[in-house]
Amino acid sequence: MNPTTNPRLTSWIPVPADSHFPIQNLPYGVFRRQTGGPAAVGVAIGDQVLDLSVLAARDLLPGGYFDRPSLNAFFAAGRAVQSGTRAVISRLLSADEARLRDDSALRGQALVAQRDVEMLLPCEIGDYTDFYASREHATNVGTMMRGADNALQPNWLHLPVGYHGRASSVVVSGTDLRRPCGQTKPADAPAPLFGPSKNVDFELELGAFIGTGNDLGTAIPADRTPDHLFGVVLLNDWSARDIQAWEYVPLGPFLAKNFGTSISPWVVPLEALEPFRVAGPKQDPEPLPYLKTKGPEGYDIQLEVSIQGAKMDRPHVVCRSNARYLYWSFAQQLAHHTVNGCNLRPGDLLGTGTISGPVPESFGSMLELAWRGTKPIAFPNGETRSFLQDGDRVTMTGWCQGDGYRVGLGEVTGVILPARSV
Amino acid sequence: MNPTTNPRLTSWIPVPADSHFPIQNLPYGVFRRQTGGPAAVGVAIGDQVLDLSVLAARDLLPGGYFDRPSLNAFFAAGRAVQSGTRAVISRLLSADEARLRDDSALRGQALVAQRDVEMLLPCEIGDYTDFYASREHATNVGTMMRGADNALQPNWLHLPVGYHGRASSVVVSGTDLRRPCGQTKPADAPAPLFGPSKNVDFELELGAFIGTGNDLGTAIPADRTPDHLFGVVLLNDWSARDIQAWEYVPLGPFLAKNFGTSISPWVVPLEALEPFRVAGPKQDPEPLPYLKTKGPEGYDIQLEVSIQGAKMDRPHVVCRSNARYLYWSFAQQLAHHTVNGCNLRPGDLLGTGTISGPVPESFGSMLELAWRGTKPIAFPNGETRSFLQDGDRVTMTGWCQGDGYRVGLGEVTGVILPARSV
Repeated sequence: MNPTTNPRLTSWIPVPADSHFPIQNLPYGVFRRQTGGPAAVGVAIGDQVLDLSVLAARDLLPGGYFDRPSLNAFFAAGRAVQSGTRAVISRLLSADEARLRDDSALRGQALVAQRDVEMLLPCEIGDYTDFYASREHATNVGTMMRGADNALQPNWLHLPVGYHGRASSVVVSGTDLRRPCGQTKPADAPAPLFGPSKNVDFELELGAFIGTGNDLGTAIPADRTPDHLFGVVLLNDWSARDIQAWEYVPLGPFLAKNFGTSISPWVVPLEALEPFRVAGPKQDPEPLPYLKTKGPEGYDIQLEVSIQGAKMDRPHVVCRSNARYLYWSFAQQLAHHTVNGCNLRPGDLLGTGTISGPVPESFGSMLELAWRGTKPIAFPNGETRSFLQDGDRVTMTGWCQGDGYRVGLGEVTGVILPARSV
Repeated sequence: MNPTTNPRLTSWIPVPADSHFPIQNLPYGVFRRQTGGPAAVGVAIGDQVLDLSVLAARDLLPGGYFDRPSLNAFFAAGRAVQSGTRAVISRLLSADEARLRDDSALRGQALVAQRDVEMLLPCEIGDYTDFYASREHATNVGTMMRGADNALQPNWLHLPVGYHGRASSVVVSGTDLRRPCGQTKPADAPAPLFGPSKNVDFELELGAFIGTGNDLGTAIPADRTPDHLFGVVLLNDWSARDIQAWEYVPLGPFLAKNFGTSISPWVVPLEALEPFRVAGPKQDPEPLPYLKTKGPEGYDIQLEVSIQGAKMDRPHVVCRSNARYLYWSFAQQLAHHTVNGCNLRPGDLLGTGTISGPVPESFGSMLELAWRGTKPIAFPNGETRSFLQDGDRVTMTGWCQGDGYRVGLGEVTGVILPARSV
């Protein structure tokens, strides 16, 4: 067992059992102190941030990675540096290790409360790719579009369908987004209309950040994923369904998606998720050799989405899903993405696509939850929703449940603001 | 008239009438001297490069833009700085201006022959978007797929269809690319096959680089294009048709395109193309208000594609087209792209999509030229092609023909190498 994920390990920093950030997690993020100063790389522990730039300045960690406003250099550093860094941090935070615990001056410099920092995007994202890896989601959407008999397109069971999304509009949790304007074509309208989207939706996804990249013209074999995939975040792929329906033929979604994509700020390393690997769904037909993997490639990550409207006094959970439902694994996504020689770079982001499960309450979008508006979602205060209204806050969270502790992804949240006047 | 585009202006540097780089052009690029030293920004004049970092170091140009390996800072600087810089360079190179002409030491530092430099990518490309803006191309492809009666999809005449491409694999002219491997599904095969693509194609396009960007949540009106679009290059959107046919439903092209996109190294400012503006095709139905433009928005840029196979002793021109055929203008592409609040950043790249004209020899891809393999292209040495073979070099060029001079885009060239062994 990797010592950094030992369930019995405890930290001298108190961590409640329901915290997402016990010593077994140690996710990386980029933060700025509210008191000022430059952005730096930190690790979440309990309700604190451990400032790695302070530790590097004391030569407790390697230099060149943490005194900067992005994780790109650390992503590029490779698995040896990354695992070594994790081992040092785990040790420094362990209950029986005095170095940092008993140095109150250093502790005062290196630790800051999470409530006293602003979290930034964890890295510069070169390219953002979005997959469509949940069979249940693809089946639900296909059933609505083409009927149950033709729900899955012919290619779906043979390859992880994916497309390129927009990197410039990936924003960090807490960023509110304007309702997009665009063209729509209601079935009964003679010509397309222009105006604010009426069908703004969320999509519950995970995002995976590339660590070490590959050169143009080379491929990453499926079994080398751990060398290239650094870690994961929560991802909300906001979608304007009415714009999408009109624009997407034949080149795919564009303005329906690129007005904003939100991610959680803490990147949880694959290493921390290792104890929570599970077998994914059985794949039939058997995938082509380049998509074959050996070990269990699923992750048992419980996922929740809540909505809080402007007139609601608390968030209401509308979806409970799990990453284990994903049909196409991260390893398969990576192998497929590069099999043609496409180059991935450190900090590139891969979204899984909406993660829907087998039962209706596990569907990962409002399109599915309200089944295209035919079964509006009911809220405790009597309101209903088929799609998001102005002022609605959408919050996603996710965690692996260990025995007495959680390895969590934190949350990604954002509010849909009214459209700009047109 | 803008004095920098005056047709009667001449330079003290001799420029033949068929050169692409007279004093009326002054395109920007990033180069490295073969003798070593850092990359810098230069301007092409005749067969020379004018090193702008040298001029900036002498305070003849503003600092901070040119002593670096990318044009991003200059793109972000805004129209006033850009036009001012162009005016200074035009003056310094004018036949009657002594400052540089008569300072042999400075001339020796600032000028270097194009044959003695390596051209690099002109900037860091944050996002690359590809449109589908030629009606003839969309009609040709649609006719092959769905028959002449349903060639254009219902949305095509209402909006410039576009999608996100891959930024990481945009390469500069001269970069050879490996034939991609991937899944294909021949009609008579019971299951998909894996192997090298058999249908590798070129697509003749223009690329447009964003100058000043826009903030997330704001839009660029169509009539503000000159403030945001800096200039253009040639673009070859290499495409693997057999991979595309199997993968593209329902989210669009992915591995069929992202193995490589080639661009020419010299970015020709819109200002230099101003004298060659022409009316584009008549638009019927009338576009929605946000897509309406006033002036002529087309550009009379003659375009040529040649292929030279490994056994051919010279390139053979297979396509003669013109940018004026584009149905959707750059201005409309920009307005559409941002109407939902999507943010563009300096250095983002917009491809036009394949530029096909009305007659068969003007079709901008082999798919169309050889009409899906039914009319193979014949070469002078007796060979034929329906798609590209290993060792084929594809070269694209383009220019505006003035009275006795040309404002050209240079060329983009690359060879298809054999697939890596699988």
